Order: sequence, then structure tokens, then C-alpha cells
Amino acid sequence: MALRSLFLAAALVGASLSGCSRETADHATSEVDSAAHERAIRSNISDWLEQIRKRDAAVIAGHYTEDGVLMPPGAPASQGRSEIETAWREMMETPGFDLTFEPTAIVVSSAGDMAIDRGTYRFTSTGPDGQITDTGKYLVVWQNVDGTWKAMADMFNSDGQQPAT
Amino acid sequence: MALRSLFLAAALVGASLSGCSRETADHATSEVDSAAHERAIRSNISDWLEQIRKRDAAVIAGHYTEDGVLMPPGAPASQGRSEIETAWREMMETPGFDLTFEPTAIVVSSAGDMAIDRGTYRFTSTGPDGQITDTGKYLVVWQNVDGTWKAMADMFNSDGQQPAT
Repeated sequence: MALRSLFLAAALVGASLSGCSRETADHATSEVDSAAHERAIRSNISDWLEQIRKRDAAVIAGHYTEDGVLMPPGAPASQGRSEIETAWREMMETPGFDLTFEPTAIVVSSAGDMAIDRGTYRFTSTGPDGQITDTGKYLVVWQNVDGTWKAMADMFNSDGQQPAT
Repeated sequence: MALRSLFLAAALVGASLSGCSRETADHATSEVDSAAHERAIRSNISDWLEQIRKRDAAVIAGHYTEDGVLMPPGAPASQGRSEIETAWREMMETPGFDLTFEPTAIVVSSAGDMAIDRGTYRFTSTGPDGQITDTGKYLVVWQNVDGTWKAMADMFNSDGQQPAT
């Protein structure tokens, strides 16, 4: 009986210790993965910039969560991929349109489910007096949706006064 | 020897099981606490609005993390509490200044360390032709700093064209 209890106890120790060490391993992996998450977000941004060059509004809208929100200056927010696709299409139809952006800082939440991404942008268009260049900043909150990072909110504004329209 | 091992094994089971159940309890608490975290953020927002009524730029700057970033339209970002305090002081010195804002959605990360807060604002000032009202939207990313929620990034922009200045 004592031996049987000993085996039982030893088995329980093994089970519960391995449970705990698996937990610890998960935490360690999740911390290491913060860099992997950041790389995945940066890779999304590279794809996004390429899709801007191709004027592919539908694919760009796919970078947002289903109920994601685009919050541009000078217009109310667009919510959902359909509204966001329209907003991107209209923006990319601006005469002389060009847009690039670059992250300044990306911080991933400890569980790897949310991330903040802020950076700068450079927007070019053609006005009545020639080329207009607007530089500004953006703030995107990313959400990890089943292993893929999607933008749940995307906001930007200009560093300078908006050119008169 | 068998008995001593049994006691040792039983002690280990007790220690490791209690360690594991404490872990489980933490997880359960953290999920339940999502609502508590949201309440804490809403309470911060109430305080912040009251401090705006009192024009208390120094206290408002304390709502940001040490290296927090304020990203207003029409100006480059301000980083750190000192720059942010100056930016708020200047904004609140606008003739006829009044500002209110209200969250539309707050989502807390699963580990309770980061949260997205987006909403709307109403900014009033006095121009050469009388009162000017600007309505727009904001996006704040909150970080849980040792149990207190602080804004790590705060951006806003207008829903309409900026009034000419």
C-alpha cells in the first residue's frame, strides 16, 4: 500500500511538474516569439506597400480585421473591409498619388494577441500648382487573428497644416 | 526509506499542484479582470476630462507613460511627459477652448497589459467669426504599468476639413 501510494504520488509529481514546466516553456516561447510577431507585422507592412504600388484596394482591405476601422483625417471613420476598400480606392485615385510609410516602433502584448505599430508616412499628390508632398504619422493597432496579424484600427494625420482644398 | 520518499513525494505533489492551481486561478482572474481593466481605463478618462476642465496640463501629462507619444494633427509628435505637458498647455490656451471625448470601444489584451481605446471628440474654440466646433475621432493605446493604465500613444484627427488658419 505504501509502495502503491509512492508510485501514485511519484506519478502525480511527474504529471504536475511536467504540467508546470510546460507552462514555463510556453511563457518562454511567447517571450521569444515577440520578435517573430514583430517580423510578421513588418512583413505585412512590406506586402501592404507593394499592394499600394499595385493600387490593389481589395487586397489592402484584407489587412484589416472583419470589423477593422480606418480613421483618416478630414472624413469620418470607415468600418469593415467593404467601406475600407472604397476609402483606399478613392485615396489611390488621387491625381499623382504616391504613399509610403515606415514603422518607428512596434510593441507586441505579452500574450502575442495585440500590438501597437506607430510610424511616419509620406503622401504625394498633384495639385493645381504641381506636386504636393505631405508628411505625417500613423498609429495602427494590430490583432492576432488565428495566427495572422490584422489591423483593427488604423489612424494617421499630417505633421503640417493641410493644404487648402 | 519508502515512507520518507512517500512524504517527500506527497510534499512535492502538494507544492507543485498548489503552484499549478495558483497559475490556473491567475488565468481565470485575468479573464474576469478584462471588465475591471476596462472600468479602470474609463475611470482614467473621467479623471482626464475633469483635469481638462481644470486646465491642469501637468496632471494630464501624468496619464501618459514616461516615453508616451502625443500625435496631434498639424504638428509633429510630442514624446515624453514634459513635451506632452507643453503641448496640452498650449492647446488649452486656445481662445474659447473646450474639449470633451468619449470612448466608442475599448478592447483589453488577453494578459491585461495593453488596451486599445477609440472614440470621438468635440473641440470648441473661438475664431475671428465666432465659435468654431470641430468633431473628430481619437485612438489611444494604453499600457498597464505596474497596475496603472497609462497612454503610450494618443492620436486624433478631424472628421471634416480643418478650418483655414
